[in-house]
Amino acid sequence: MRVRMTVAYDGTAYHGWQLQPGAVTIEERLNGTLSELFEEDIRVIGASRTDSGVHSYGTVAVFDTNTRMPAEKIMYALNQRLPEDIRIMSSEQCADDWHPRHCASKKTYLYRICSAPVPNPQYRLYAHQTRYRLDVERMNHAAQYLIGEHDFKSFCSTDSSAQTTVRTLYEAEVTSVQIPMAGEMITIRVCGNGFLYNMVRIIAGTLMEVGVGRMEPEQIETILKASDRCTAGPTAPACGLTLYSYEFL
Amino acid sequence: MRVRMTVAYDGTAYHGWQLQPGAVTIEERLNGTLSELFEEDIRVIGASRTDSGVHSYGTVAVFDTNTRMPAEKIMYALNQRLPEDIRIMSSEQCADDWHPRHCASKKTYLYRICSAPVPNPQYRLYAHQTRYRLDVERMNHAAQYLIGEHDFKSFCSTDSSAQTTVRTLYEAEVTSVQIPMAGEMITIRVCGNGFLYNMVRIIAGTLMEVGVGRMEPEQIETILKASDRCTAGPTAPACGLTLYSYEFL
Repeated sequence: MRVRMTVAYDGTAYHGWQLQPGAVTIEERLNGTLSELFEEDIRVIGASRTDSGVHSYGTVAVFDTNTRMPAEKIMYALNQRLPEDIRIMSSEQCADDWHPRHCASKKTYLYRICSAPVPNPQYRLYAHQTRYRLDVERMNHAAQYLIGEHDFKSFCSTDSSAQTTVRTLYEAEVTSVQIPMAGEMITIRVCGNGFLYNMVRIIAGTLMEVGVGRMEPEQIETILKASDRCTAGPTAPACGLTLYSYEFL
Repeated sequence: MRVRMTVAYDGTAYHGWQLQPGAVTIEERLNGTLSELFEEDIRVIGASRTDSGVHSYGTVAVFDTNTRMPAEKIMYALNQRLPEDIRIMSSEQCADDWHPRHCASKKTYLYRICSAPVPNPQYRLYAHQTRYRLDVERMNHAAQYLIGEHDFKSFCSTDSSAQTTVRTLYEAEVTSVQIPMAGEMITIRVCGNGFLYNMVRIIAGTLMEVGVGRMEPEQIETILKASDRCTAGPTAPACGLTLYSYEFL
């Protein structure tokens, strides 16, 4: 049978999702733990990769197995064997030909920023820390220009091999809450049909430029039109990014 | 001059605050970093210790130094040299005879619990994870019995050497918020004039028994009267505990 599971992980200790020689990755850990558990050679297929240090709450992955264990119980057996920084949130049987990268999906990412005079060490691994005060209203205004179908070439790392840089963003919003001990926690939430290499981190870096006042919200339009990575802001650090959820259409 | 500072730390990687042969502790790190920075032998005096794995947001410590660096600047010089899991939140000059353990203080602790079917790995280091649903209203009701001056012997680890087990709690409350990706985050907040060894963690473990329905809120009174550690609940794990703040009277 083919089993679909949702995987959450703290990416701090991993070289991202994808198998890499000589590096510890999420994919490698899942393959190893599943193969040991079911005593067969198992390879997971992930819906997408994440980079080194990026976190996930809702990565979707499938694998094929001959086990007789009910699919819904597999999450418990796996969670007993996986390291604590990887958790299987759900597991269920799916169609034998269902492939997480062969069907259209909406993907949601969160990028989190803690703004405080001195960062609280408890949040340093899961949010980007800044001493600057960010104007969240300006950032949210700027984010609205990203919604819709656009060529996001300016928001894509130059070493990307994507065939087309056109993507559609369905949602983009910036909100903020005061968190005890963390100062202001700002969350950039983006939902789209696909994301280019480093796209969310470049969006976050650019919105931060707007937040501190070095860019105007309207400049986002100009940056999109320029199709030039140099016009956008810096790539924000990996630790702030979490792949939040998938919705398959 | 004598300098007073507020220290925040992620206790995950440390064997607590206090110097210990052969173990990495917060006190040792601060002594080493300060001695290197000012090229003199510096020993900090902390307002209190924390155990292995316990976090802090507001530990207060003092040290004496001959430096001419303005006391308010010392925090920046230290933060550049300290590991990222220790942060100096403030530094200021204080009276040469001011000692953080020789004056009355109110101390506030937070104990945090994430209640979710599967714990999110992002919160595993800073909150105790439970699959059980906890009745927060019952827990808060139970907590009210702890307020006031009591003999807290039942809430003290038996290997404590405290001269008296009488302490005063000024505040005790249990609240809860839904946090995206974390499920329900329950915070036990206690403020008192002093705490016995493991007292907050035993309070947390006992309130959780009330929360799952294994104890009645009113039982707290009986437990206090019993002066017997065996009558209270288990000691909750260290990772949920944060020393939040000091107020010197």
